[in-house]
Amino acid sequence: MSENCALRRANVLANHILQSPPQPSNISLAREACLQYTPPEVNESYGFQVKEMRKLLDGHNLEDRDWLYGIIIQSNLFNRKIRGGKVFVSPDYNETMEQQREISMKRILHLLEKGVFKGWLTETGPEAELKKFALYEVCGMYDYSLSAKLGVHFLLWGNAIKFFGTKRHHEKWLKHTEDYLVKGCFAMTELGHGSNVKGIETVTTYDPRTEEFVINTPCESAQKYWIGEAAIHANHAIVISQLEINETNQGIHVFIAQIRDQDGNICPNIRIADCGHKIGLNGVDNGRIWFDNLRIPRENLLNSVADVSPDGEYVSAIKNPDQRFGAFLAPLTSGRVTIASCAIYSAKVGLAVAIRYSLSRRTFSAVATGPEVLLLDYPSHQRRLLPLLAKTYAMSFAANDMKMMYVKRTPETNKEIHVVSMGLKALLTWHNMRTLQECREACGGQGVKTENRVGHLKGDYDVQTTFEGDNNVLMQQVSKALFAEYVSCKKRNKPFKGLGLEHMNSPLPVLPTQLTSSTLRCSHFQKNVFCLRERDLLERYTCEVAELQERGESRELSFLLSHQLSEDLSKAFAEKAILQAVLDAEAKLPAGSIKDVVGLVRSMYALICMEEDPSFLRYGYHSRDSVGDVRREVSKLCIELRPHALALVTSFGIPDAFLGPIAFNWIEANAWS
Amino acid sequence: MSENCALRRANVLANHILQSPPQPSNISLAREACLQYTPPEVNESYGFQVKEMRKLLDGHNLEDRDWLYGIIIQSNLFNRKIRGGKVFVSPDYNETMEQQREISMKRILHLLEKGVFKGWLTETGPEAELKKFALYEVCGMYDYSLSAKLGVHFLLWGNAIKFFGTKRHHEKWLKHTEDYLVKGCFAMTELGHGSNVKGIETVTTYDPRTEEFVINTPCESAQKYWIGEAAIHANHAIVISQLEINETNQGIHVFIAQIRDQDGNICPNIRIADCGHKIGLNGVDNGRIWFDNLRIPRENLLNSVADVSPDGEYVSAIKNPDQRFGAFLAPLTSGRVTIASCAIYSAKVGLAVAIRYSLSRRTFSAVATGPEVLLLDYPSHQRRLLPLLAKTYAMSFAANDMKMMYVKRTPETNKEIHVVSMGLKALLTWHNMRTLQECREACGGQGVKTENRVGHLKGDYDVQTTFEGDNNVLMQQVSKALFAEYVSCKKRNKPFKGLGLEHMNSPLPVLPTQLTSSTLRCSHFQKNVFCLRERDLLERYTCEVAELQERGESRELSFLLSHQLSEDLSKAFAEKAILQAVLDAEAKLPAGSIKDVVGLVRSMYALICMEEDPSFLRYGYHSRDSVGDVRREVSKLCIELRPHALALVTSFGIPDAFLGPIAFNWIEANAWS
Repeated sequence: MSENCALRRANVLANHILQSPPQPSNISLAREACLQYTPPEVNESYGFQVKEMRKLLDGHNLEDRDWLYGIIIQSNLFNRKIRGGKVFVSPDYNETMEQQREISMKRILHLLEKGVFKGWLTETGPEAELKKFALYEVCGMYDYSLSAKLGVHFLLWGNAIKFFGTKRHHEKWLKHTEDYLVKGCFAMTELGHGSNVKGIETVTTYDPRTEEFVINTPCESAQKYWIGEAAIHANHAIVISQLEINETNQGIHVFIAQIRDQDGNICPNIRIADCGHKIGLNGVDNGRIWFDNLRIPRENLLNSVADVSPDGEYVSAIKNPDQRFGAFLAPLTSGRVTIASCAIYSAKVGLAVAIRYSLSRRTFSAVATGPEVLLLDYPSHQRRLLPLLAKTYAMSFAANDMKMMYVKRTPETNKEIHVVSMGLKALLTWHNMRTLQECREACGGQGVKTENRVGHLKGDYDVQTTFEGDNNVLMQQVSKALFAEYVSCKKRNKPFKGLGLEHMNSPLPVLPTQLTSSTLRCSHFQKNVFCLRERDLLERYTCEVAELQERGESRELSFLLSHQLSEDLSKAFAEKAILQAVLDAEAKLPAGSIKDVVGLVRSMYALICMEEDPSFLRYGYHSRDSVGDVRREVSKLCIELRPHALALVTSFGIPDAFLGPIAFNWIEANAWS
Repeated sequence: MSENCALRRANVLANHILQSPPQPSNISLAREACLQYTPPEVNESYGFQVKEMRKLLDGHNLEDRDWLYGIIIQSNLFNRKIRGGKVFVSPDYNETMEQQREISMKRILHLLEKGVFKGWLTETGPEAELKKFALYEVCGMYDYSLSAKLGVHFLLWGNAIKFFGTKRHHEKWLKHTEDYLVKGCFAMTELGHGSNVKGIETVTTYDPRTEEFVINTPCESAQKYWIGEAAIHANHAIVISQLEINETNQGIHVFIAQIRDQDGNICPNIRIADCGHKIGLNGVDNGRIWFDNLRIPRENLLNSVADVSPDGEYVSAIKNPDQRFGAFLAPLTSGRVTIASCAIYSAKVGLAVAIRYSLSRRTFSAVATGPEVLLLDYPSHQRRLLPLLAKTYAMSFAANDMKMMYVKRTPETNKEIHVVSMGLKALLTWHNMRTLQECREACGGQGVKTENRVGHLKGDYDVQTTFEGDNNVLMQQVSKALFAEYVSCKKRNKPFKGLGLEHMNSPLPVLPTQLTSSTLRCSHFQKNVFCLRERDLLERYTCEVAELQERGESRELSFLLSHQLSEDLSKAFAEKAILQAVLDAEAKLPAGSIKDVVGLVRSMYALICMEEDPSFLRYGYHSRDSVGDVRREVSKLCIELRPHALALVTSFGIPDAFLGPIAFNWIEANAWS
C-alpha cells in the first residue's frame, strides 16, 4: 500500500470511527448509565429520497404491494405479535409440520377472500402478470411456504393448463383454480429423476376402447416425489409422464388427473405418502404419488403441443421429440423468474435486519476509555455487509429487467429469456444464501433466533438452489447456449445478435494499465472489463471443447471435461447481465442524489465482482497491481456507502412488521414484561 | 491449457466415465427394467485398510466411541426407525422446542445411567480428558443439542468450578455435577455484551455485615442471554459479573448462584425467561436471567484467582486486571477445542452421506443411448466434493493435534493452545458450514429432508461460527497475537520460537518457477509456499500497522484499518497449522497404501488452498502460470482420489445408523410399505 494512500484511508476512517458515535455525556459512569438503544434514524441521515429509490427498486405495483402488506399485518391469522411496542408478523415456526401446513392453507384462503388472487390465471397481459409477480413477492417475504404453495397452485398447475391446454381445458379449470374450487399440484419429479426430466419412468398408454389414458408407476423409483400440496391439500395433479402409443415412446407429455375427491379422500388407483419433515418450507405438504394404472379421460391430455385422436393416433405439429420436450419445459421459465426475484427480496429482508442491527449495536472500544463502536463503523463489518448490499441492489435491477422481458415475451425473445433466467436464477439464489449466512453471522446469536428472521430464511430458501433446475446444471446450460451461439455465428460468419453478445462484434476493448480511482468507477471501463472476461472465457471454452471433440471425444463428454471454464463463463455472463441492468437503470435517472448513489452502488458491484472472482487475475484481465487498486477502491467505496446504509435498506420498502425485533429497539423488545 | 495436458486429462476422464459404470444388460429396455439401487460397495474397491485409516482419523478411544454408538443405537429413547430394512437413529425434529428439550434431557439421563459421564469431572489427566472428548464427539454426531447441553453442564459450569474454584468448591460440586444431582449453567453473555466480555453490566457487591455477595442486573441490557439450560433444566448457575469492592471495580469475577430449588421452582430474587425458538439446537433450553440483588454466600466466589476476605478486602495474586481477565477466560479454550473437533465430525457426516449418495445416484447420459452417469463420475461433482473431503481429512488431523496439545498442556504451551484453538475454531466451523451447504446441494432435494441429516446439521451447527467467540473476532485475535510475537522477537532481536513461526528464522524459501506435477505434490514445496505466505503477510501486516501508528493512529484503530491483511494472515496461519498436522501424521506412517492416500489427500489440501485463496496470486507467491498449474493438478488429484472416495468416507467410522437413508438403499427406503 502506498504511503499516501494509507494516510488518506486512515484519516477518513479515523474521522468516521471517532466522530460518528454520539458521545455519552458520562463515559466514566458508563456501566451505571447502562446501555441505551438509539434508533439508527437518530444519527443517520438520508442523503436521497428513499421513496424515489423504493420506486426504482420495486419497479412496479407499489400500491398493490402496500395493500397486501396491510392485509397481512392486519389479520390475526398471520401471527401478529408485539415486541418492544411494535407489531411484527411472521409464522410461528415452533409449530409442527402438520400445524404449519394447516395455517398456511388458511392464510391462503384468507388472501383469496380478500381478492389477492383475482385474475391470476384469467387475466392476461403484462399488467396482470406484473401485479401477480408483485403480490407473489410480498407473500414470499412473509413466509416462503406461502409463496411455494401459491407457486405450485398457480405457476405450475395453473400455468401448465394455460400453456399446454387448449380452450376446453382453460374453460374447465382456470377460473375454478383461481377460486381454489380446485386445488392443483404438479407431478413431474420422481424419486429416481429430478433434473434429468427426460428420464422419468412414469408411463401413460392409451386405451382406444374406452378412450382413456392409463397412467402407471412401473416401479418404486418412478414414484412422484417432492410434489408440493400432494400430501394433504391438492385434489388434482398435472402428471408429467412418458406417453407410449402403439408401443412407441413419444416422450414426455402432460396430463390432468384427479387425485382426491371433494371430501379429500384419495381416489382409487392412487397411493399417496408424505415426504416428511424438511429443513424449511414445512408449510408445504410435499408428497409422493404412485399411479396404479389410473384411467383418465382422453380429454385430460393437455393438447396444445400434441394430441391423441379417439382411435389412438398420435398427432403433433412438432415432429422433433427434442423440440417437443423443450416446449413442455417452457412454463418452468416463469417459475425461475419468480424464484430469482423472491430470492432477492429474501436477501433484502436479511440485509435490512443485519444493517439496522449494526447501526444500533456496539462492541469494543477503539480507544481505551472511549465508548463502544457501532458494528457498522468497523471497516471489517462494512466490508462484510456493504458489498452484499450493493450486489443485492444490482441483482434487484436485473430481476426487474428479467420480469419485464418475461411479461413482454415474444417468440423472438424466448431464447434470451430462457438463458438469462437460468443464469440469474442460479446466481441470485446462491447470492441470497450467501447473504443470509453473512447477515446471520453479523447478527451474532440474535441471528439464530427464529423471530429475527435472517437465520430462518436460510432454511426456507435453501431449496431454491436446487429446485426447478439444479443451479450447477442450469449454469452448464447457460455455457452450452453461449457455445452454440458462438459456433453458429462463426459458422455462418454472421455478427452476434442477442444474449448481450453484441460486444463481440467490436474490437477487443483495451484496458488502461494505470487504474486511478476515477477509471475504476467509470462505467465504460467496468463494462469493458466484464465484456472482456465474457468474451475471452467464451473463446477459451469453445476452443477447449472443440479441441476435445477434434480428438474424438463426444460432444457431451467434451462439455463435461471443460466444466471449470464453463463455470467461469456462465458466471461471467450472468454478472455482466446484472451490470448491464444497473447501467440501464442509472442511465434513465435524472442527475441528482439518487443517480449518484446508484453510481456508487454500481461501482461497488462491479469492483467487488472483480475482487472476488479469481478469474480476473487468473486469466490476466487484471494485473496484480490492478487487483490491488480494485481492492483499495472497494475499501473506499465502503466508506462512501456507509453513510447511505440506512437509507439504502429503508428504500427496500419493507414494512417494519416484516423485519425482526432486533432491527428495532431490541432492548425494549427483550425487556422483562 | 497445453495440448498434451488436455489430451491426457481427457483420456483419463473418458476412461473413467465411460468404463466405470456397470453397463445394464438391457439398455434399450431401460425404462421397463426400472432403476435399480446398487450399493457403492459393489463397484468400488478399497485400496487401503479402512480400519487402519479410521484409527488414524479418530486418533484415540475407538472402543469407547463404538461403545457409545452402540448404546445410542440400541435405546428406544434415541428415536430408532427402520428405513429400507436398516436401522437409523436421529431425533424427530418435527417435535416442538418443548418436546425436543424434554427428550434431550431424558437422553442425557439415560447416558448417565449407562455410565457415559463417569469421571468427566472427577478424573484427571490426558487419558480421562481424551475419553471425554471422544464420547462428546459421538454425542454431537447423534444430535448437537445433546452435545451443547453436555457442554454447558460439564465444560462451562463444571470446568469453571474446576478451574476457578478451590478445594471447597471441588468437593462440594464436582461429583454432584457428574451425577447430575446438580444441573449447571453458565451465565456470562448478556443482551448487550457478547464477544466483548469486559463490557458486561451485571454488578456484584459485597456486604461484610452478612458476609454475602449481592448480584444485581442493573438494567435490561444486562440480562443474561442465551444461557443454555437456564430456561428449564438448570438449578445452578456460574455467574460472570463485574465485582465492585468499596466502589472500585475489580473487573469480571466468577460466582455460583442457585437459580432453582429442588422442585424446579425459580428461586426468589431471580427472574427467568425463555430465549424462544431457534433455527437449530432446539433441544437446548436457552434462557434469560435477571438478578434482583440476589444474595449468595461469600464462599460462592470461585477464588482461585482472587478472593474477598470476610471483612470485605479484595485479594488477588494477579495484580493486573487485564491478566486477571485473561485468566478468567481460560476455560473457554476447552470449549473451543471441542467446538472445532465437533465441527469436523459434522462435516464427516455430511460428506459420508453426500458421497455415498453420489456413488449410487445417476443422472443424464454422457453418450446418446448410454446409461446415466453416476454423480461422482462427473468431473464437476468430483470438484465440488473431493477437495472438501481432503480438507476435512486435513482438519481432522489438526483437530487431533490440538486435542493432544490441550490435554498435555503446560503453562509454557498455553499461549500456543490459545492462539491455535482460536484459529482452528474459526476455520473448522466455517469449513463445516460450507461443506454441509455443498453436500446439501449435491444431494439435491434429498438434502433438505431432515431425516437425511446433511441439511439439518446446518441449522444445528450454524451457531458454532459465532458462539464462544465470534469467528471474525477470533481471527483478528490470531493476527494480533502473531503481530505481538513478531514485534517482541524483533525488538529483543531473538529468534522466533513457538506458534510455528520458527521458519521465519531461516532464509526466505525460494520457489521453483516451473511447477511440474511432482513439484506441486512435494511436501517440502507445499510447506514452503505456506510458510512464504504466512511470513510475507505477517511482515506486510506489521508494517501496515506500524505505519499507521507512526502517523499517530491508535494501536487499536491501526489494527482495525488493517483488517484485510489481518484476515489474510490469520487464515494463512491456521491453514499452515493444518498442513503441518497432515505432514506430521504422514511422517509417522510406514510406507504403504495408507501413506500413499494420505499423501494424495495432503496434496489436495495444499493445492486447493492455493487455488481458492486469491492471496497466492494477489501477493505474488504464485505466478499466473503457476496458478494454472495448480488448478490442473487439482483436477488430476480429483481423478486419483475418485477411486478412494468410498474408502475415505468409510474410514470415518460412522455407524450406518448415524447417516441418513439416502446414504444407503434410497429406493427401498422410499418404497410404498
